[in-house]
Amino acid sequence: MFKKILIANRGEIALRVIRTCREMGIKTVAVYSTADKESLHVRFADEAVCIGKPSSVDSYLNIPHIMAAAEITNSDAIHPGYGFLAENAKFAQICNDHGVKFIGPTAEMINMMGDKVTAKETMIKAGVPVVPGVEGLLESLEHAIQSAKVVGYPVILKATAGGGGKGMRVVWKESEMEKNYTTAKMEAAASFKNDGIYMEKFVEEPHHIEIQVAGDQFGTVCHMSERDCSIQRRHQKLVEESPSPFMTPELREAMGAAAIKAASSINYEGVGTIEFLVDKHRNFYFMEMNTRIQVEHCVTEEVISFDLIKEQIKIAMGEKISGKNYFPIMHAIECRINAEDPYNDFRPSPGTIKTLNTPGGHGVRVDSHVYSGYTIPPYYDSMIAKLIAVARTREEAIDTMYRALSEYIIEGPGIKTTIPFHLQLMQDENFRKGEFTTKFMESFKMK
Amino acid sequence: MFKKILIANRGEIALRVIRTCREMGIKTVAVYSTADKESLHVRFADEAVCIGKPSSVDSYLNIPHIMAAAEITNSDAIHPGYGFLAENAKFAQICNDHGVKFIGPTAEMINMMGDKVTAKETMIKAGVPVVPGVEGLLESLEHAIQSAKVVGYPVILKATAGGGGKGMRVVWKESEMEKNYTTAKMEAAASFKNDGIYMEKFVEEPHHIEIQVAGDQFGTVCHMSERDCSIQRRHQKLVEESPSPFMTPELREAMGAAAIKAASSINYEGVGTIEFLVDKHRNFYFMEMNTRIQVEHCVTEEVISFDLIKEQIKIAMGEKISGKNYFPIMHAIECRINAEDPYNDFRPSPGTIKTLNTPGGHGVRVDSHVYSGYTIPPYYDSMIAKLIAVARTREEAIDTMYRALSEYIIEGPGIKTTIPFHLQLMQDENFRKGEFTTKFMESFKMK
Repeated sequence: MFKKILIANRGEIALRVIRTCREMGIKTVAVYSTADKESLHVRFADEAVCIGKPSSVDSYLNIPHIMAAAEITNSDAIHPGYGFLAENAKFAQICNDHGVKFIGPTAEMINMMGDKVTAKETMIKAGVPVVPGVEGLLESLEHAIQSAKVVGYPVILKATAGGGGKGMRVVWKESEMEKNYTTAKMEAAASFKNDGIYMEKFVEEPHHIEIQVAGDQFGTVCHMSERDCSIQRRHQKLVEESPSPFMTPELREAMGAAAIKAASSINYEGVGTIEFLVDKHRNFYFMEMNTRIQVEHCVTEEVISFDLIKEQIKIAMGEKISGKNYFPIMHAIECRINAEDPYNDFRPSPGTIKTLNTPGGHGVRVDSHVYSGYTIPPYYDSMIAKLIAVARTREEAIDTMYRALSEYIIEGPGIKTTIPFHLQLMQDENFRKGEFTTKFMESFKMK
Repeated sequence: MFKKILIANRGEIALRVIRTCREMGIKTVAVYSTADKESLHVRFADEAVCIGKPSSVDSYLNIPHIMAAAEITNSDAIHPGYGFLAENAKFAQICNDHGVKFIGPTAEMINMMGDKVTAKETMIKAGVPVVPGVEGLLESLEHAIQSAKVVGYPVILKATAGGGGKGMRVVWKESEMEKNYTTAKMEAAASFKNDGIYMEKFVEEPHHIEIQVAGDQFGTVCHMSERDCSIQRRHQKLVEESPSPFMTPELREAMGAAAIKAASSINYEGVGTIEFLVDKHRNFYFMEMNTRIQVEHCVTEEVISFDLIKEQIKIAMGEKISGKNYFPIMHAIECRINAEDPYNDFRPSPGTIKTLNTPGGHGVRVDSHVYSGYTIPPYYDSMIAKLIAVARTREEAIDTMYRALSEYIIEGPGIKTTIPFHLQLMQDENFRKGEFTTKFMESFKMK
């Protein structure tokens, strides 16, 4: 049993982990940059250690500082949250080498899934369908041009070390290859210090549907059904829901089985997500595996009444899972509330919150680290809250979400949020009908 | 289908009704006293009408003003909430006479259940067990003394028009009768303008367990299982939960059947609650029926995933219910957060809220009308929020509640809240074991 867990993260996910730890009677240690000293995760943790300057490299990505904080506070385990060091195999290895349990998979598993090319090869071997593409990394512009001729346009270029849309480019014809190839490589190098790029067939009219899985240290793996994350803007998820309006019982069974196959093939330990692209004929292709908790894990928690962070911690402590799969009994939708201006190309709009009213009532969950008087620091991502609505049906969940959004007040000098976008989306006819693909946002206009 | 509903109430319940109306696409009208003009129920309603001065008699109890507001705004229906006019048969009659649907039972049903003596007689005829007592009202002190000899001490004196502990007195021996009889009559007269007092056997070591019921206009009645409200202080509920830790499947079946019998005996229409006392041998006795939504309805909503306000509105619109009963699939606990000082005999401690942090995350629901900058008016009841925790088990629900309470910050000059009381209660050994009766608070001491 862990007595104390250090959370190597900030914002809502740090608070999220603290909440579960408190419910389990486990002490918590927050780490924070100097920009976050007024953050709620610092206030609500049992202990807090400043680990450096605002820049992530100096603080939340600074492994020596985090390990020092773990040592000083005598922490038994480290929860990495998402982003930052959550999929850093070296960090997982260092934690375990120092006798501090990394709450997540082993470094080897992270490596196998973190490198997109290796992951794809592993999935092919395991018999999990993947998007057609070129084996290995692109060696040159010429190689890219020749490969695209084989795969057929449109193709997508992706950073092998990537995630979150960085280093990703769709190429529709040969004349656009040079510019996109160069940009993708530059972005990859800048974002991940690894400019490796690979190529895939670009699936048109795709749905982004992912399967939540969990595996214990004894080889048992289960799935917890799907989340639909097709409402994306530049590969950044904006809205997630479970079940997917595009799902059928047969597809869920097939995708669930494939996800279990994928996780089992690497003896996966912890909670994780297998992301698939699903085309309009309901063919599905493995995209990648996220070997960590995801932002959108809450919708799964609400539809199956299950605490996924508790599950992570229990698995890390060596508990067995039952192996039974979970199926949605409710419908849940999550809106990411970002400090971005939807009327101005979603430009980040941080500032100090002067007026805050958090929605409540039946069917409403809020995960947020902000409060009235809180200054949103400009150094990190712009997400300031996750609003989740739960009901018996999708239609009711949308109605509850609309109602909750209409109560949400986050105001302050310079602050704009994505609330107006979500309000409009909840009234959008195609969204309400459940008819949307990952291209939905390309034609969406704010009124 | 109602197009517009006027909510003849204030505070969290007014907001609660607005929320469901908005989810159903029904317009809302708030009414408010001059003391409540900055209240959230005024801000979130589609229209708002000021109905008078702060004193309840001048505003929330002022039937002509409320009817005028309904007429001006062309409202189709009136939701009375709880308290104020919710169990006022005359008001229900006036609404319906003016072609404005009263969302609740008919005036006749309210009358039958509102007068405690009539209610008891009705239940005896229907075959629902009641607490042994004296038939009819006490005519004099001498009648009281003689009656107590028949019923046997201890006895309890209750106001026939009463509720909320006013005009209620337990008498343990004959020498205490005169003082208690006189006080009960005086309190009843002052509180209800009706000094009628009746007498019952006082059940020792009782549990307050109530059954939620719903009946439609076609005679179908169902129950939605129980709530345990034994944690009370001077007959005011502090904490409610479902299921009851004292419940057995057999007792639930028996009490559910009795509750349906009780509601059916008056062809009950709307949602309502049959309150029972359950003794340590699990004998149960009808106490009273509340012909309205209750403060603690949220715990039922959370354990059966059901919107009871929506159900009220649908029944009032003439929809049929299925007749199937509902059984808890989760465990939910509600803590009433009052602006009262638990270290000073729960004395009301209103003021202006300067710092507010509302808890969130998995398993947490908050129903509250307050915000940072809100001034709690001293004219009405002191409840400022309801905090509800939901989990798969009672133990987990308590852990979630403790965690949520520990995040709840409501601070301002002069403001004290019951949060410290609830934090201590959630750690109380007997409470955690589920071993408590309505006498629990008599021996509870703040640390």
